[in-house]
Amino acid sequence: MTMARRDTYTPDTLLAVAVRVFNERGYDGTSMEHLSKAAGISKSSIYHHVRGKEELLRRAVARALDGLFGILAEPGATGGRAVERLEYVTRRTAEVLMAELPYVTLLLRVHGNTDTERWALARRREFDQQVAELLKQAAAEGDLRADIDVRLATRLLFGMINSIVEWYRPERGSAAPEVSAAVVRMAFAGLRVT
Amino acid sequence: MTMARRDTYTPDTLLAVAVRVFNERGYDGTSMEHLSKAAGISKSSIYHHVRGKEELLRRAVARALDGLFGILAEPGATGGRAVERLEYVTRRTAEVLMAELPYVTLLLRVHGNTDTERWALARRREFDQQVAELLKQAAAEGDLRADIDVRLATRLLFGMINSIVEWYRPERGSAAPEVSAAVVRMAFAGLRVT
Repeated sequence: MTMARRDTYTPDTLLAVAVRVFNERGYDGTSMEHLSKAAGISKSSIYHHVRGKEELLRRAVARALDGLFGILAEPGATGGRAVERLEYVTRRTAEVLMAELPYVTLLLRVHGNTDTERWALARRREFDQQVAELLKQAAAEGDLRADIDVRLATRLLFGMINSIVEWYRPERGSAAPEVSAAVVRMAFAGLRVT
Repeated sequence: MTMARRDTYTPDTLLAVAVRVFNERGYDGTSMEHLSKAAGISKSSIYHHVRGKEELLRRAVARALDGLFGILAEPGATGGRAVERLEYVTRRTAEVLMAELPYVTLLLRVHGNTDTERWALARRREFDQQVAELLKQAAAEGDLRADIDVRLATRLLFGMINSIVEWYRPERGSAAPEVSAAVVRMAFAGLRVT
């Protein structure tokens, strides 16, 4: 038995606890009871902050999506040749993924069972679509190898970036700048000496 | 209500049904009851074939692992410069993943809650380790770019290959040979014109 703590949560700190529990148990497997236990405050205290677990999910994936879409508005993503913008967006996507690790992890695991999840999936597809568009432009400008299939390359690029959530831990192993640089190097220059 | 079908299963066809259910519900979320319903035969008929669901998991991940370790014994993986062997193993790993899609998908989702799962994780690490070894050799032979971190590159390479399970569907989209060729091209030569 733990004594209920006094509710000293802000919307952000409560969100951080919820995201940790969602990532551990899965969103479907998390009840308000689980959230109340993890936060050490009563369910009614949680309801003081949010309407329910779906609102917490929405805020969490919105934070991840805001981070990702924010990249597309940065100067590095809007000016210059498409291939430069594509490299920039690739590096920044890896960086945002690591900076917002639990939020992006949750976003990548969303299934589509609720309205919020379907909205998150649609927004993710939109982001992927915009990156695919950059790839297409870079190919049209002659900066990508001619034998590249844009659709496949987009999928493999995101496959590589998103896999970072499986093993990246900020407290040990490679630091974020090394990881994002390695992603850009492998995706654009390849492993092999030419 | 469905009438129980007569048990016309072989070990392989029963395994295929079990793997489908494991991938849909998660291994932890699958009961013998679920397997019995999906197969349309009684639980005692299933017990005629196997001791329980963990044996089905073991057979399924063994099939995936046999496919993967088989690659390392093929002539393309054992003769020639390390970089050529590495490219060969990369292509073949993608091919085996697609040919044995449900089995490798299950292998990649294993958590480590049971002895069988821990064994599967250890074998997967062993496979990754052998590929990392090839990368190290290829770097030592001067065939990989000098700025490559072997550990990071191995992770990103498997991240890219393993992400194929998220979207590859044999009945639509890109065909397996295009996908495996795209993986090798992107990983070794990169997207960008040099």
